[in-house]
Amino acid sequence: MRTYFDCIPCFVRQALDSARLVTDDEHIHEQVMRGVLGLACKMDLYESPPAMAQKIHRLIRKLTGVEDPYLQTKSRFNQLALKMYPELQEQVQASTDPFETAVRLAIAGNIIDLGVKTGLAESQVEETIAQSLTGPLDMEALKEFRNATAQAKDILYIGDNAGEIAFDRLLIEQLPCENITFVVKAGPIINDATMKDAEIVGLTDIVTVIDNGSDAPGTILESCSEAFRRRFDEADLVIAKGQGNYETLSDVDKDIFFILRAKCPVIAQHLGCEIGSLVLVKNQVGICNEEKLEERS
Amino acid sequence: MRTYFDCIPCFVRQALDSARLVTDDEHIHEQVMRGVLGLACKMDLYESPPAMAQKIHRLIRKLTGVEDPYLQTKSRFNQLALKMYPELQEQVQASTDPFETAVRLAIAGNIIDLGVKTGLAESQVEETIAQSLTGPLDMEALKEFRNATAQAKDILYIGDNAGEIAFDRLLIEQLPCENITFVVKAGPIINDATMKDAEIVGLTDIVTVIDNGSDAPGTILESCSEAFRRRFDEADLVIAKGQGNYETLSDVDKDIFFILRAKCPVIAQHLGCEIGSLVLVKNQVGICNEEKLEERS
Repeated sequence: MRTYFDCIPCFVRQALDSARLVTDDEHIHEQVMRGVLGLACKMDLYESPPAMAQKIHRLIRKLTGVEDPYLQTKSRFNQLALKMYPELQEQVQASTDPFETAVRLAIAGNIIDLGVKTGLAESQVEETIAQSLTGPLDMEALKEFRNATAQAKDILYIGDNAGEIAFDRLLIEQLPCENITFVVKAGPIINDATMKDAEIVGLTDIVTVIDNGSDAPGTILESCSEAFRRRFDEADLVIAKGQGNYETLSDVDKDIFFILRAKCPVIAQHLGCEIGSLVLVKNQVGICNEEKLEERS
Repeated sequence: MRTYFDCIPCFVRQALDSARLVTDDEHIHEQVMRGVLGLACKMDLYESPPAMAQKIHRLIRKLTGVEDPYLQTKSRFNQLALKMYPELQEQVQASTDPFETAVRLAIAGNIIDLGVKTGLAESQVEETIAQSLTGPLDMEALKEFRNATAQAKDILYIGDNAGEIAFDRLLIEQLPCENITFVVKAGPIINDATMKDAEIVGLTDIVTVIDNGSDAPGTILESCSEAFRRRFDEADLVIAKGQGNYETLSDVDKDIFFILRAKCPVIAQHLGCEIGSLVLVKNQVGICNEEKLEERS
């Protein structure tokens, strides 16, 4: 997905929010803002939004000297998710359709996206869980996803954020496939999950976890390691969580199911849904590429 | 008032909204965005927000070739305000305190600010009137304002937006001073009122109307004509409407009453009030200058 003009004020706001999270020093806030405006001024709009976010957050880390600005926040949401996990696991097991309930909870977990909303309250996570358990979900897509996971021999599950990945664990526990690899980021980027987070929520105990070799808040294949790209090519089914993975992989010709909560107007419009919608959608590269050609012409 | 970092994403969003209002041509949207980001990247943060908005809207007019992008919108809100005017005038006259009611309605009219909110529905104007008639208002400031207008020999009333100025007419009709000059912008800037709007709402029939020689969405004295600055110096009381005039005049050493509705978080924080508050406040240059020195140190 390309970067839309509406993404630009949002990048600038995100950069300011992140700079403020790291330091109270207004001189650094100013350096970050001027740096980001300079980057945005020359940006390639045919790159996906995470490509720009990658540049912005590299700049913030460089200017502040703080390697992992969201470390504490990630820890807080890991702990919150772990606290909720046993009860949610019981809820999945007790439900009439554990697979559907697990999909709904995996979508709910995607609210923990601090790129879109820096100040996320814990109560909002609880509210989102309640909404996600009963909100509208594309039942045709769910059926197709259930069949695809039943047939897949080799699933690559690309995670999104710290905390959220404990919700992914609930879904992974429902997948019949024995060969599942979970993917985290190689370096800190916003509150995206890294290997440490996968260990904390116990994902490393149940599946193989690899990193993608990149510090982009999505999956920009050319920014990923060769080892990851090989794994991506080998998998017969990819499950990709969150907006950043949708933005970077929706034009890739591969069987991918995207699972996310639509949290910004640009994504909602691109998906043809309302903000707050539960999204389970299969990649439709034919359509995406046609749209892209039209956009570029 | 200086420009805060939070104003910057808002400038970028405003520029996009304005460019879209003028044209559907995405190439022009892109030129506007890149141009604005380039300007913002090098901006002087000790200038007030309207100084940047002036540059942005000059760029939009230049790139689109449209001299008055908000012409239709201004006309629409002039007509709306004129339609409401007779009933509001009756309401003022029938109220127990016509002066207070007129102040409240002048504040209500300040919702018609398309710099802050591009898509303003007419129903929101009606809602705002209802809220403004009963919402909290600083009664000490009202008393001081009433006394100041009773004693003033020469009032300069600096207007803000088209449509809104019909609400200002209601207040002007309650001012006992015989020597009142109303000020409009010299050239089109967002939906700020110009001489034509003052004629349409009938202000030119009841007071002297002058323009300030500038196309900034506020009163940047150095950007105004010498004739306006002389008039500003001579007046013994200045009434300044709206956020733009507050942002540009709050540091000027002069008896000024600001009348506005706080519509953005930066202004609300600067004034120490909530968004949506009714604001009637006298200039406190001593305090402002101290703050300014602290900020600069």
